[in-house]
Amino acid sequence: MKAKNIIIILLCIVIVLLLAKILFCPGGKAECQSSQPAEGMDALTAIATRTSIRAYEETPVEEEKVETLLRAAMAAPTAANRQPWRFVVITERGILDSIPTFLPTARMLSGAPLAIVVCGDMSDTLPDEGREYWVQDASAATENLLLAAHAMGLGAVWCGVYPLQERVQAMQQMLDMPEGILPLNIVAIGYPAEQPEPKDKWMPEKIHYQRWDGTTAE
Amino acid sequence: MKAKNIIIILLCIVIVLLLAKILFCPGGKAECQSSQPAEGMDALTAIATRTSIRAYEETPVEEEKVETLLRAAMAAPTAANRQPWRFVVITERGILDSIPTFLPTARMLSGAPLAIVVCGDMSDTLPDEGREYWVQDASAATENLLLAAHAMGLGAVWCGVYPLQERVQAMQQMLDMPEGILPLNIVAIGYPAEQPEPKDKWMPEKIHYQRWDGTTAE
Repeated sequence: MKAKNIIIILLCIVIVLLLAKILFCPGGKAECQSSQPAEGMDALTAIATRTSIRAYEETPVEEEKVETLLRAAMAAPTAANRQPWRFVVITERGILDSIPTFLPTARMLSGAPLAIVVCGDMSDTLPDEGREYWVQDASAATENLLLAAHAMGLGAVWCGVYPLQERVQAMQQMLDMPEGILPLNIVAIGYPAEQPEPKDKWMPEKIHYQRWDGTTAE
Repeated sequence: MKAKNIIIILLCIVIVLLLAKILFCPGGKAECQSSQPAEGMDALTAIATRTSIRAYEETPVEEEKVETLLRAAMAAPTAANRQPWRFVVITERGILDSIPTFLPTARMLSGAPLAIVVCGDMSDTLPDEGREYWVQDASAATENLLLAAHAMGLGAVWCGVYPLQERVQAMQQMLDMPEGILPLNIVAIGYPAEQPEPKDKWMPEKIHYQRWDGTTAE
């Protein structure tokens, strides 16, 4: 084979490589990878595939991911825009290990590198009968946090505290919370060490149309 | 150029094209495109940019999108997997128009093509002190529904009903609900006719570390 032919072949390789890049991946390599977990799982997929994760790798959760989780939580809507939520971020092994002693449903905390307690501050809630809206606000914030965790490749599980008085008081005492702070739940978080299938909870019989019995007025 | 050389060049092109495909896009073209908008707004973006929408186009919401909203709602986690939620889908003009007569905060319903009432079925809840967990379950479902709406280009707003007794009773009566069904809220939904900026609710002072006062035990 002559030197001229080798040069022609090499030139062809370069041209075809460039063409292939444009053809298969117009937005560049970054776009190809943006559908990977990291920051790019689509919202409907994240909602459909999120499930409770109770086993975690030892790897700590990066600080910037903790901030993203809290930003997601604080992006939820609140009644009359009161934003009555507060958050306690726990990474200290001693605290994580001691919580299951009074909250047995949160035993996975002994293997979790991170937990976030979602609370309500009663000094920020609506007055009177509207006070209990804080539960709905903090629950929406928790769901955002769970979805953000899943979208970033983390796994999490929501462990209920409020309104069970015994659990509320034990958590307040453990974390030295003032009286007006009510812990709604504790969310255990870490890189998943299990891959359970999401539950199929779709039940069309739970849907009613127009009125409960389906009657229309028109 | 000889025929033999042309064949060599063509073979090179094929080999390099295959190599390039593996190199630039290991998961294939579909993977490259799965991060595109339409059904593909990424989860963290959806969470950060969702905001309450109170003005809608007249365009009805497609049935398949209504199903996607309800599937998203039923994908939320529930205490002890009780799934105590129920949904009433309302598109009838007469019903939508009459709800603001007893729920003035939901006056945008008179301009909305669709509303979904998220309810709890007390026969499916946990017993005793755990009964009120239905509020958290149905709130997480509502947040999923709001995020799914936003991800599909719809706008929505959460109008609180429970625990305000007057609102609960009026809604039960309006929709002929049996006694054990409690309406948590009504979500107005439609294609947005306004583009408000999402509120900035990020407040790092609402975050505590390890314990309320930041002390550690270790």
